[in-house]
Amino acid sequence: MSYERTNIRDMAGYLWGEQPQDADPCKLNTNENPYPPSPQVAAALRAFDAATLRTYPQPTADALRTKLAERHGLDRDSVLITNGGDEALRLAITTFVAPGTPLGCAHPSYSLYPVLAGIQDASVLPVHYNDAWTLPKDFAAQANAAGARLTCLVNPHAPSGRLMGVEQSAELAAALNGVLLLDEAYADFIDPSLGYDSAPLLRDFDNLLILRSFSKGYSLAGLRLGYLLGQPALIAPLLTKTRDSYNVDAISQALGLAALQDAAYAEDAWAKVRQERERLRDGLAQLGLHAPPSQANFLLASVPGHARLSAGDLYAALRAQGILVRHFNASKLRDKLRISVGTPEQNQRLLEAIKGLLSDASR
Amino acid sequence: MSYERTNIRDMAGYLWGEQPQDADPCKLNTNENPYPPSPQVAAALRAFDAATLRTYPQPTADALRTKLAERHGLDRDSVLITNGGDEALRLAITTFVAPGTPLGCAHPSYSLYPVLAGIQDASVLPVHYNDAWTLPKDFAAQANAAGARLTCLVNPHAPSGRLMGVEQSAELAAALNGVLLLDEAYADFIDPSLGYDSAPLLRDFDNLLILRSFSKGYSLAGLRLGYLLGQPALIAPLLTKTRDSYNVDAISQALGLAALQDAAYAEDAWAKVRQERERLRDGLAQLGLHAPPSQANFLLASVPGHARLSAGDLYAALRAQGILVRHFNASKLRDKLRISVGTPEQNQRLLEAIKGLLSDASR
Repeated sequence: MSYERTNIRDMAGYLWGEQPQDADPCKLNTNENPYPPSPQVAAALRAFDAATLRTYPQPTADALRTKLAERHGLDRDSVLITNGGDEALRLAITTFVAPGTPLGCAHPSYSLYPVLAGIQDASVLPVHYNDAWTLPKDFAAQANAAGARLTCLVNPHAPSGRLMGVEQSAELAAALNGVLLLDEAYADFIDPSLGYDSAPLLRDFDNLLILRSFSKGYSLAGLRLGYLLGQPALIAPLLTKTRDSYNVDAISQALGLAALQDAAYAEDAWAKVRQERERLRDGLAQLGLHAPPSQANFLLASVPGHARLSAGDLYAALRAQGILVRHFNASKLRDKLRISVGTPEQNQRLLEAIKGLLSDASR
Repeated sequence: MSYERTNIRDMAGYLWGEQPQDADPCKLNTNENPYPPSPQVAAALRAFDAATLRTYPQPTADALRTKLAERHGLDRDSVLITNGGDEALRLAITTFVAPGTPLGCAHPSYSLYPVLAGIQDASVLPVHYNDAWTLPKDFAAQANAAGARLTCLVNPHAPSGRLMGVEQSAELAAALNGVLLLDEAYADFIDPSLGYDSAPLLRDFDNLLILRSFSKGYSLAGLRLGYLLGQPALIAPLLTKTRDSYNVDAISQALGLAALQDAAYAEDAWAKVRQERERLRDGLAQLGLHAPPSQANFLLASVPGHARLSAGDLYAALRAQGILVRHFNASKLRDKLRISVGTPEQNQRLLEAIKGLLSDASR
């Protein structure tokens, strides 16, 4: 006998990328930062007094909220700390999306969105990105017509890496009837010369949420730490009602603070990733695998039709060599690989492996 | 303008007990273990390599699942690790309770249950405990008649501390049409001479979930770590669908394992708490504050009607002295205080403070 709700029984769960724990593969499949977290994080970990774990953590992670509020030029009430960015997405859906109504999004995108919508017994807006990874011009109108009360857009876009400008986000926030959540999980890797900063939009829009994460930018995927920014009235129901009361543990709160205190270290890692991103993109292009310009820490490389190996074949062949990349069996993505930007050594190893595999296949 | 769903807008959030972070009060208000976690937890924390936080944690905390499965005589597929017991409750409600149907429970109980039901746009069964903190004989019939698909019962009961026997749990599991979740957050403090063990029931009942927590028994409230036991088919939708993919961080996984490896230390702390529980209960009774026998790490003490101080007054007066206990402004609880069992020194300080306050008030 099955006890779960019908929508849960009928849905498929999220398929996470492989997370090998023992081996030391060339892991370019889940967009982790190739550099370790700041030495100040390691120091904070060593300094943490285990005896204090006896008591509950500060329920709302206020020290971290204060620090992030300062950083983004906001009040503390505009900040919500979450157990990873995934929790922020789930909370937004729980709070704003009624069962039976659609979640606004465009495909392909972060494959967790439809899963979270399914848990809420909600559908997803059946809109697709254009070939240049831009949204259809009537996107907001379609979302409104379908009755979407929450729209989630990952920016820079995953898996393409394309950045949507702040002006377009403002237009969307103005046009949407519901809440717009900009999922900026990869925003730390945006070229600073572009001057991208969406936080000032929060002054003008009471329906805007901005999601950020410590997973990639601060090399803390293992710690589960993310946050949402929004006007206090939009943050309040998530903070005081739908969030688990002690959603972020005491160690994560302390280590998150330590990471923020060493901004220079993190910025240096971002610069290195950006530099490698361009080198890797050029290297892939030389092998015939073209990727659009990316402002994230990954590239979406197309495996050309004339290659003897399909993208799926190439994924499997790389995996056999201990090199993990990501292949999605989904519309617009079947001929592509999403490759996280690694260290120079990892990227070089990947390029050489692809070169060898393509050369073997064409013999 | 308000963007949240109507049920979210209309509900009240959970009110957590005070969690002072800076001062060192006599904190007997949120049922924390008065002793620090095992030295092996501290050692595991110091040994943890911060560099590994760069990558995602093992998604399902399998090492911890394996260890807990061994401990309870189950298969690994019968274990789900959660970000505190609260997440286990939320996942069960998300998975089994359809909006508009009632969550089975009895009042008063853990005050989070109605909050989680409210988030799911579900009601709660309007059944109350009898005066002796037992369930009405027709409890399962009432839950079935109301269409409850999930019933949550905290055992030992909070806030009374009363333990329901395994036989009665078996009867309930057999009688209920839906899932029975036994919330055993305090089970580590049950007198071992009672031989309480509900896990063997899992062989017979496909609708039974058992919740356990590291917060109290292992002095790890600050870490957020709990788990569910159940037949694999009941665990599966929570594990693969409704759970956030990386719900438990890498450090918590490692420290939870370390805590389990030092079972002797934890058992010693439980024994000390049990001993103090009886001493505190006697001391309170001598002051006229009678509490029913408790198998948890707290006592529910009644402030007698003839005292010049109400329970609410006494709570406030203790608080003014830096002693935190819990007072619930709810039916059957207004004349009572829930007092966590502390160290001998904390309990003595509490008893002396109550004695002084009652004596001052009667002058």
